[in-house]
Amino acid sequence: MHISKSFIPILKNNPSEAKIKSHQLMLRVGMIKQSSAGIYSWLPLGLRVMKKIEQIVREEQNKIGAQEILMPTIQSSEIWKESGRYEDYGEEMLRIKDRQNREMLYGPTNEELVTDIFRSSVKSYKSLPQLLYHIQWKFRDEIRPRFGIMRCREFFMKDAYSFDINDEEALFSYNKFFLSYLKTFQRLDLKAIPMAADTGPIGGNLSHEFIILAETGESKIYTDKRIFEVDNKVSKLEKKTLEDLRNRFEKFYSVTDEKFDKAEFETKVVEENRLITKGIEVGHIFYFGDKYSKPMDASVDLPGGRKDFVKMGSYGIGVSRLVGAIIEANYDERKEIMKWPISVAPFDISIIPMINKNEKLALKKANEIDLELAKNNIETLIDDTDENFSSKIKKMNLIGAPYQIIIGKQSEDDLIEFKKIGEVSKKLKLSEIINIIKKEKEKN
Amino acid sequence: MHISKSFIPILKNNPSEAKIKSHQLMLRVGMIKQSSAGIYSWLPLGLRVMKKIEQIVREEQNKIGAQEILMPTIQSSEIWKESGRYEDYGEEMLRIKDRQNREMLYGPTNEELVTDIFRSSVKSYKSLPQLLYHIQWKFRDEIRPRFGIMRCREFFMKDAYSFDINDEEALFSYNKFFLSYLKTFQRLDLKAIPMAADTGPIGGNLSHEFIILAETGESKIYTDKRIFEVDNKVSKLEKKTLEDLRNRFEKFYSVTDEKFDKAEFETKVVEENRLITKGIEVGHIFYFGDKYSKPMDASVDLPGGRKDFVKMGSYGIGVSRLVGAIIEANYDERKEIMKWPISVAPFDISIIPMINKNEKLALKKANEIDLELAKNNIETLIDDTDENFSSKIKKMNLIGAPYQIIIGKQSEDDLIEFKKIGEVSKKLKLSEIINIIKKEKEKN
Repeated sequence: MHISKSFIPILKNNPSEAKIKSHQLMLRVGMIKQSSAGIYSWLPLGLRVMKKIEQIVREEQNKIGAQEILMPTIQSSEIWKESGRYEDYGEEMLRIKDRQNREMLYGPTNEELVTDIFRSSVKSYKSLPQLLYHIQWKFRDEIRPRFGIMRCREFFMKDAYSFDINDEEALFSYNKFFLSYLKTFQRLDLKAIPMAADTGPIGGNLSHEFIILAETGESKIYTDKRIFEVDNKVSKLEKKTLEDLRNRFEKFYSVTDEKFDKAEFETKVVEENRLITKGIEVGHIFYFGDKYSKPMDASVDLPGGRKDFVKMGSYGIGVSRLVGAIIEANYDERKEIMKWPISVAPFDISIIPMINKNEKLALKKANEIDLELAKNNIETLIDDTDENFSSKIKKMNLIGAPYQIIIGKQSEDDLIEFKKIGEVSKKLKLSEIINIIKKEKEKN
Repeated sequence: MHISKSFIPILKNNPSEAKIKSHQLMLRVGMIKQSSAGIYSWLPLGLRVMKKIEQIVREEQNKIGAQEILMPTIQSSEIWKESGRYEDYGEEMLRIKDRQNREMLYGPTNEELVTDIFRSSVKSYKSLPQLLYHIQWKFRDEIRPRFGIMRCREFFMKDAYSFDINDEEALFSYNKFFLSYLKTFQRLDLKAIPMAADTGPIGGNLSHEFIILAETGESKIYTDKRIFEVDNKVSKLEKKTLEDLRNRFEKFYSVTDEKFDKAEFETKVVEENRLITKGIEVGHIFYFGDKYSKPMDASVDLPGGRKDFVKMGSYGIGVSRLVGAIIEANYDERKEIMKWPISVAPFDISIIPMINKNEKLALKKANEIDLELAKNNIETLIDDTDENFSSKIKKMNLIGAPYQIIIGKQSEDDLIEFKKIGEVSKKLKLSEIINIIKKEKEKN
């Protein structure tokens, strides 16, 4: 894609209203635009990244046998009255009256709606387990939205729900998502740590938050450093191997603020291993048994003829928030260099030709290279403007495609100036460049 | 995918509440589930189809140089007050007060929001044209939602917006979308006819609806039959070729109800060519000049230093409605056979093994075939239940994968019983079957 044809509105300076670096960068390079308090439009650059994250989240859900559905954003209040949460949920729920004066709401989460779908179709234990997920916009009417898309009102979220016959099977489902989350974040190049967490308005007594370390994070965490070294490989999707996986993590003390107990922390973790820091929550999983199935009467026939309420869990990943989290983890604000993991980069490589008004040879060469890269499914962004070289480099460093090609006015031979963003350049043949990028992409 | 593991809740009989065949089929095979009046959840089978339609729509937008963005569902009333539509829009607009008592609304369309995005970033004619689109949920608070997802309240829509320097360029953009729509519907195997149409609450004086013929349609249309034979091929994306394309269509009288003029119809169309029938609107395009850019002050610098308001058009395709439209066009309700175009079929082929309780040889063979098909990116649905053969066939005929493989109890040789849905079967080698399906898929 050529910059001159693209809708990438770049600001010269950091916007003063942005307090954290992800918010700064996203406004600076035109990834998002605020439309009202805590509500954003996604412009092409931001949307490209979010769509790639969405697809990775989807693939990892499918791998554990979860099936994709899509529930609407607007729900009836009736099912929330059935579960008992309509009054409890508080002012964060956006309540709406339609033209017939019916009480509706913009879904902040979907336990009720998915339970309603389940109970109307599934009648027998033979159809269990069922793992259903959707990726849909949610709304939570935050009183003080802030930090751009990190704490906004309308946000894009993957939420999944599991339905099982008993606790043992339900924990197997829980552990499948536990694994799936580790793999998802790994593909995003994020080191996300599962931490025992509070269950809040979702309910239940077992819950993990997945947290990445970041100074700008809003979650305070207390952990044993060694948890960062835990092996998260699992050979098979089996009860035993998944239990082992969770045990390997739970061996190390690791909790969020609400679960923190000073005495326990100091007993379980020797001083040199203690880490007290801040993080960003990127995923949250819950097990809550029959908290919703019981009041909403979602039961199945058991083998002997008896009936029982299904045991449920729910599993969320903040897809839009992950865009910000990845920036927090990868943006060097001092050098003004962003480096996207290639799995979600808006473009794989940027091409920076030096262009004079009357001398477009470098642009011609850039277009030829682009054609060759496109044949290999490598996505490029070409700066075809006639701005000066240093402002072009500055722009591309902010946009953050992980590789760059620079084409000088006299590039006579077959060798191309190529570099990883922020590193030193070297001269390579185009075929070598293609190999490097393809290999990097295949890793994912 | 195996039916026993899937979430495809099939009903034995047609649901009585459904009046038209798309609504009947979608409920019958569990593509959707109503959650409240005019609001639906999409279950796996329905979502698979809708996602494929969405992707085709996206690809055809990208081909004419439109860039994808994503605007939020909840908008502030302020921009609607700027354009003057807030009071005009009427009760179909879902109006909301947030917890701070601010007037918000669920976007029924996005002219205002996209104009706001445009004016904050684009300042010069040099950045024109800009074609921006998004695919997002909309809400229109219909007083009487009906016909399932054909006339519902929350629906999924692609809407695009063009920004140009003058009328001539703006019409070029309009014609690009005109072509893009013809190509999109063609890839969905739909014969959609562009008809001169009323502009309604969007405004402007040039508008076309794209309509497919269907007895259950809500649009009454008056047309010259010969319009169905118009050649829609275009060699290049140029002003002249696109004008010619539109002229080829506009030569034939073809209007919706609001534009109908009896005298004109009878003068322009000889009796034998007159067609008065009903259709379903699947797309609608508008040109309205500076109707929004003027009150909202979206202007650009022109070459001479003067400023002028940009000229805008907007372009909608009902993505969720298309699922229903394709069913209306392809479902034989008497035979109870649905045949999806392979471009959007939920599965390419269904495999029906005859299974007894103690005799699973046919299932084993089905799984082996599935493996081979999967290697060739052919999506299969296997009925691994032990229902009787005729009820399995009935189910697969409703689900509508365009091809079927039937595996009897004794299928000794290499030849496989294969058929197009609803046609006579023949015996073929697996490699031949793969070739047939791959060829069919490549056409798209």
